[in-house]
Amino acid sequence: MATTGKQLFTTLEADGTLTIKLEDVTFADPSGNQVLVRMEAAPINPSDLAILVSGADMENAEYSHGKFVAKMPAPVNAGSKARHGLKLPAGNEGAGTVIAAGDSGAAKALVGQRVSCVPGNAYSQYCIADAAMCLPLGEHSAEEGASAFVNPMTALGFVENAKADGQDAILHTVGASNLGQMLTRICKEDGIGLVNIVRKSDQVDLLNNLGAEHVVNSSDEDFMKQLIAAIHATGAFYGFDPVGGGKLVDTAFKAMERVATEQMTEYSRYGSNQMKRMFIYGRLDTSPTILTPSYGFGWTLSGWLLFPFLQSVGRETMGRMRQRVRDNLTTTFASQYKSRVTLEEMLTKDAVLDYRAMRTGEKYLVTPWS
Amino acid sequence: MATTGKQLFTTLEADGTLTIKLEDVTFADPSGNQVLVRMEAAPINPSDLAILVSGADMENAEYSHGKFVAKMPAPVNAGSKARHGLKLPAGNEGAGTVIAAGDSGAAKALVGQRVSCVPGNAYSQYCIADAAMCLPLGEHSAEEGASAFVNPMTALGFVENAKADGQDAILHTVGASNLGQMLTRICKEDGIGLVNIVRKSDQVDLLNNLGAEHVVNSSDEDFMKQLIAAIHATGAFYGFDPVGGGKLVDTAFKAMERVATEQMTEYSRYGSNQMKRMFIYGRLDTSPTILTPSYGFGWTLSGWLLFPFLQSVGRETMGRMRQRVRDNLTTTFASQYKSRVTLEEMLTKDAVLDYRAMRTGEKYLVTPWS
Repeated sequence: MATTGKQLFTTLEADGTLTIKLEDVTFADPSGNQVLVRMEAAPINPSDLAILVSGADMENAEYSHGKFVAKMPAPVNAGSKARHGLKLPAGNEGAGTVIAAGDSGAAKALVGQRVSCVPGNAYSQYCIADAAMCLPLGEHSAEEGASAFVNPMTALGFVENAKADGQDAILHTVGASNLGQMLTRICKEDGIGLVNIVRKSDQVDLLNNLGAEHVVNSSDEDFMKQLIAAIHATGAFYGFDPVGGGKLVDTAFKAMERVATEQMTEYSRYGSNQMKRMFIYGRLDTSPTILTPSYGFGWTLSGWLLFPFLQSVGRETMGRMRQRVRDNLTTTFASQYKSRVTLEEMLTKDAVLDYRAMRTGEKYLVTPWS
Repeated sequence: MATTGKQLFTTLEADGTLTIKLEDVTFADPSGNQVLVRMEAAPINPSDLAILVSGADMENAEYSHGKFVAKMPAPVNAGSKARHGLKLPAGNEGAGTVIAAGDSGAAKALVGQRVSCVPGNAYSQYCIADAAMCLPLGEHSAEEGASAFVNPMTALGFVENAKADGQDAILHTVGASNLGQMLTRICKEDGIGLVNIVRKSDQVDLLNNLGAEHVVNSSDEDFMKQLIAAIHATGAFYGFDPVGGGKLVDTAFKAMERVATEQMTEYSRYGSNQMKRMFIYGRLDTSPTILTPSYGFGWTLSGWLLFPFLQSVGRETMGRMRQRVRDNLTTTFASQYKSRVTLEEMLTKDAVLDYRAMRTGEKYLVTPWS
């Protein structure tokens, strides 16, 4: 029995032409531990945008039914050499109903159930997914389960990482995002200190309503003073940043060092011995990261990605994290969406220009069967 | 018995006035594990310059006998707030003869011996030093022993760090420096792969004559190609950089990632899983470090300092490292100097403008009794 449905593909040619279009695809029968999922909802996360539109000129792209063709600027295109000519699927995660399974018991047990999954081609009417990575949703809707993996596991991952490094406080540079709100709830539940940076006063209110204790607004004149006070109060010398470009990481290191030097009894030209640690886990700003020589040598900055992190912690920790997500799907790990679009609507100019802006709290959900 | 001699002090006032001058100082008798050393030679290392001249306007400073007064630019001065008003000594390391000792056996055993030491005020006719940090020089001259600590222990520290992290190759961005030459000899002795970056063709020759296998010249048109080939040949995804500012670290990460992606069988939008690691251990360039989003998320950049490193490895490892320095002082760990200056000559315009340029291979040696 061959199953046929629409799936989105993205192709970047060597000359910088980016083509995203829907194609009719025939899905092979699932085998072994695979399941075939009829997809009902998939979020557009920043990590998906990197492969969908990246730095392409979407203002002047050609849009037609179920397709757009855009130009990638030369520098971005040169940096994307490894994908030139490859026709790639898109969509990390989503939720739907299992309609067929391979031979394994774990796969067969999922037939008929609604699951959250991480297929890598979630912008599609059907997906083949690994049963081991499927989370049965029980009575939850597909919309409730669509974002059950990337943001929840990332937010939990930050806390796992911090604990493993002996930290009891975290700084997060984009506090009001869906992920930031989850992190706020997790830290509250786990008694982990949290410094949230936001950009607007309504975001301060939003997080305060979630019970956040330290929310600092980068638009305020005394932002640096607020930030230093919050780091002092929590001991958050360990932070996560999804922006990447510009001076946000630099600002965090500077504030951490200010707190550390204020606690020193003797001057050192090399700065404090307080270890300062930041992770960049996204690239909302693709301009370069700027690090000024203002905080000595006691700092470390790393890239952070969910999948290598999950590989490093092992199956048991990951199982515990997933169980916690499942148990708290509509509370701690709830996601909000601004708009719901079909696969076709997802490729219209209005939609693309809106979701590529990645404004805090304005996430899109793709519903392939609407 | 009070001992009196000249010592250099550096003071930065809140208004940005930097005063460096010699003063007559009376040194207390050594006690406990202390020794009193009559200093004969002390190098001017880049780490010393940070506290001597930093970013001050040395072109327009007022120079007089045994003194200069300069202006620190506002941004640098603001960043140096922690030292405002403090009168600080300078000179990390040097060599001289022990003329008195405290009560401890270790201290007493050094009396009459020439030692290398790390007093922190080496630009002085006398120093109080910790006997545990003194290296007896035997028949070696003070000049041979003056740089026996900072560069040798740093170069050995890089190799220790690399081995502890399971690496068998290192990248070094300033290959032709005194430290770079030592590192070249150490890596050859220990069978560690080494990629040396240099800026001039005569530096390529210099390192080739030391037996270096992979020397790449950043002035060559095909520098990036050379660098990628050298990383490919050695597997050096682990490097050290004393420049700090600009794009040198970025270039190293880019080249590492190019090698890693060429070895991948499947495209990943997140870049390779090859961990790329760089350490900034100096600030020859005080402009910001620029990191472009060109090598995924599998990278880590840290500051690196000798003293915290030595504390982390413990006494036994440090003892082994020091013994190796002592055994190979005029071979593996030999330093060259461009000029020898007295304490007074060190504070003249000609000398300051020359040594603050920190040109590769043009190190100064201070000889307080000449």
